[in-house]
Amino acid sequence: MAKDLEVQEGGATAARDYVDPPPAPLLDMEEFGKWSLYRATDANAGGVDCGGVGILGIAWAFGGMIFVLVYCTAGVSGGHINPAVTFGLFLARKVSLVRTVLYIVAQCLGAICGCGLVKAFQSSYYTRYGGGANELADGYNKGTGLGAEIIGTFVLVYTVFSATDPKRSARDSHIPVLAPLPIGFAVFMVHLATIPITGTGINPARSLGAAVIYNQEKAWDDQWIFWVGPMIGAAAAALYHQFVLRAAGIKSLGSFRSSA
Amino acid sequence: MAKDLEVQEGGATAARDYVDPPPAPLLDMEEFGKWSLYRATDANAGGVDCGGVGILGIAWAFGGMIFVLVYCTAGVSGGHINPAVTFGLFLARKVSLVRTVLYIVAQCLGAICGCGLVKAFQSSYYTRYGGGANELADGYNKGTGLGAEIIGTFVLVYTVFSATDPKRSARDSHIPVLAPLPIGFAVFMVHLATIPITGTGINPARSLGAAVIYNQEKAWDDQWIFWVGPMIGAAAAALYHQFVLRAAGIKSLGSFRSSA
Amino acid sequence: MAKDLEVQEGGATAARDYVDPPPAPLLDMEEFGKWSLYRATDANAGGVDCGGVGILGIAWAFGGMIFVLVYCTAGVSGGHINPAVTFGLFLARKVSLVRTVLYIVAQCLGAICGCGLVKAFQSSYYTRYGGGANELADGYNKGTGLGAEIIGTFVLVYTVFSATDPKRSARDSHIPVLAPLPIGFAVFMVHLATIPITGTGINPARSLGAAVIYNQEKAWDDQWIFWVGPMIGAAAAALYHQFVLRAAGIKSLGSFRSSA
Amino acid sequence: MAKDLEVQEGGATAARDYVDPPPAPLLDMEEFGKWSLYRATDANAGGVDCGGVGILGIAWAFGGMIFVLVYCTAGVSGGHINPAVTFGLFLARKVSLVRTVLYIVAQCLGAICGCGLVKAFQSSYYTRYGGGANELADGYNKGTGLGAEIIGTFVLVYTVFSATDPKRSARDSHIPVLAPLPIGFAVFMVHLATIPITGTGINPARSLGAAVIYNQEKAWDDQWIFWVGPMIGAAAAALYHQFVLRAAGIKSLGSFRSSA
Repeated sequence: MAKDLEVQEGGATAARDYVDPPPAPLLDMEEFGKWSLYRATDANAGGVDCGGVGILGIAWAFGGMIFVLVYCTAGVSGGHINPAVTFGLFLARKVSLVRTVLYIVAQCLGAICGCGLVKAFQSSYYTRYGGGANELADGYNKGTGLGAEIIGTFVLVYTVFSATDPKRSARDSHIPVLAPLPIGFAVFMVHLATIPITGTGINPARSLGAAVIYNQEKAWDDQWIFWVGPMIGAAAAALYHQFVLRAAGIKSLGSFRSSA
Repeated sequence: MAKDLEVQEGGATAARDYVDPPPAPLLDMEEFGKWSLYRATDANAGGVDCGGVGILGIAWAFGGMIFVLVYCTAGVSGGHINPAVTFGLFLARKVSLVRTVLYIVAQCLGAICGCGLVKAFQSSYYTRYGGGANELADGYNKGTGLGAEIIGTFVLVYTVFSATDPKRSARDSHIPVLAPLPIGFAVFMVHLATIPITGTGINPARSLGAAVIYNQEKAWDDQWIFWVGPMIGAAAAALYHQFVLRAAGIKSLGSFRSSA
Repeated sequence: MAKDLEVQEGGATAARDYVDPPPAPLLDMEEFGKWSLYRATDANAGGVDCGGVGILGIAWAFGGMIFVLVYCTAGVSGGHINPAVTFGLFLARKVSLVRTVLYIVAQCLGAICGCGLVKAFQSSYYTRYGGGANELADGYNKGTGLGAEIIGTFVLVYTVFSATDPKRSARDSHIPVLAPLPIGFAVFMVHLATIPITGTGINPARSLGAAVIYNQEKAWDDQWIFWVGPMIGAAAAALYHQFVLRAAGIKSLGSFRSSA
Repeated sequence: MAKDLEVQEGGATAARDYVDPPPAPLLDMEEFGKWSLYRATDANAGGVDCGGVGILGIAWAFGGMIFVLVYCTAGVSGGHINPAVTFGLFLARKVSLVRTVLYIVAQCLGAICGCGLVKAFQSSYYTRYGGGANELADGYNKGTGLGAEIIGTFVLVYTVFSATDPKRSARDSHIPVLAPLPIGFAVFMVHLATIPITGTGINPARSLGAAVIYNQEKAWDDQWIFWVGPMIGAAAAALYHQFVLRAAGIKSLGSFRSSA
């Protein structure tokens, strides 16, 4: 993603942002990210049945996949595979409005295709694990689920901002390679924490894709949580990073610019 | 943390240390670090019930969270999220007294807020896993628990010193990025080893926050272990690193200084 | 593998490609990669028995081994330990035809020796886990198995291309060291997803070696899936990377060449 | 360890090798490495009881600890915490004879102290898991155990040589930091593969320390396996790397020397 930032800072290339098509490549890979879910666990109420890989396995599957996907796509599109992250970067003026909209459309289409592929390939697991759809678990009210999504997405987007901070890039010139690792780990952590509550969304495209293909009432009823929560969390992280943290760093940024 | 060291070595910025407020940002993130604990296991006597993530999952949750937190906050406050680590760095003259005190206060406040948030969000798990409070497990005496905390914190702080050694930074200019990885792994290892004994403190703020919110007699009775042990371990690591290891390295340090 | 690319781009060394023998070293190490499989799990239908390491453990075993093997052999042969990957790199004109054939022969011989060694060392586990042979699990038809192998190999080879892209190498000069990590993680992810379907091939040499030593009818009947699937997946990744992604990067490549 | 190599290549510092005492620091840390073992599993015949962390957890404990220890001690002693690795580096003329002997003595003393500490701290687990002593599991003959130790140590030492190869260091200047990661992963893999056979030695000091403190007949009867096997494996890796791989690299080494 750091590469994307640099592109945005150059005036000439920023103009090009408005005509670039959304990067189709994400479709192929993102489909796969959904796949791991279905051999997993009955995650209602945090339960683990010993016949699956358990919460730890699901968390590794998501965290590892995000690591690989961000690593692979960072050089193509800047690693945009999550509408909430894209929205956060838009708020921080790292991505243009047109590009943001096109990215989010591409992300949702990719997620829908991915879930459809899983349904076709693994129909027994698909049914058994509820289509991997994000739903509020029994015993949690909507406020708790929304809060979990907000905090989880805050952690993810805050990590993304930390990893792609231009100040950091200047200090550590190899950030473009290493950034995917903490981002993947952040996704891993958030899954460990919130799978028992919501099945962990923190990516509205992933939640939408699963709901479209699974198409059950409960998944649609709870869908708004997986858009409102992540967007609030991403906005909070973006504003926090840009206004609280960057304000303190303005002075040193000056010296960075001259050395860059 | 390596960045922090550099700040301390410049005389002009060292003077500024005494007026800087403690970094509020840690509050938001540190809360989350506590969260993972509560979907976990009945850890008395090392037991794993199949409904949680087990000792291995808890260890990954703590180690991974520390990796992400240190990575994210290294550029803001130098990654200070643990009173014992801050105390060790203070003894080695890497952090000023005022900053040390303010950091520790902020860390404790952050931990209390985090535990409160968990209690509000996950009340059933919170009760089931004893509020995540650090207590001596049945069958271990206080000496064993204290020893476990001392050794565990020694390992952590020794790793922090190794990773942020100015000699090392000079050799490997990308240390600021890579340091969080071994630090996170050290936390992972210490949890694997000491969860059955004390639930693993090695961070007095984490132990205090859990005790304040849980507020049961046993947690308060054992609280001293989670302050005395880590502080002794951190002091031992700091003195060992500064006087034993650095003494042998003085000569090569001279050549480093001139090349820096 | 990045090193290999550089060799291929120099005209003088490319001529040498046709006389170099296949690198014998792979034999010794690759044998070991097979070994981890046999203390594992009854993987039909994704079951985990508590006496093994489970799907998560198998996935870590394969992913970690590939990380170590690619890391160790990258400097010797360019990390070629998989016929599908070698075939994909051949299609992208990164490896010569003669070298490709010799590599694939060496990979198959190494896999056969490795499986023979496991049979000799661990005969009880060997029998218990079906010789580690790749077979289509009950309840899946051949099309599903083939699709799983295609997609899994696509993910792997796409990651290999992303990690060894000359554009990326130019930007991040330390890629040769870091490339094995996402490649290993990709293997880990693909195993998590496809173990329940086919036991995960994505490496025809690994499938052939297990079939040769196990020598049961079912393993031979399904063998074609583990050659056709990976080769299609690798070809798709190679063509996609070379024609879709690289086309968009031609302009920036020009500026890279002049700075290299 | 790469740093160690550099020291050895300078003639002036090589002379100093013969008077340097073995690095005491290893004692403190290595003790801890043993600790993780005892909350683990009844590993005879590969069994996992659900009350421990299982084979996967043990493998992570050893691999992670080696990662942290090598990372921390690489700058002090070159990361020598294993007699077999030290012996292999001695055969390759990377370490002097006197230093090799002193290192091995220090490693054995550290392991004995560590096991004694565990016995004092965790007496119930210590007895339950057989003192962590390496013994041949039931159903395996001595030849199989010896072969497992030889191959396991070969993998480890081969990885060490790959990671600290001067050719590689020249290409990738940050190897000193990254080398511990594949070395730790190699240890992880070998444990996954050989815990059911021998409990995994591949480090004679670890086997000796456990035997000294546990002091049971079976552990002493099998002790020779855990010295002969690792030493043969290390010697094979050293000779293989120096004579087979390096021979092919002599030419490019010449160009490296001049650029260094």
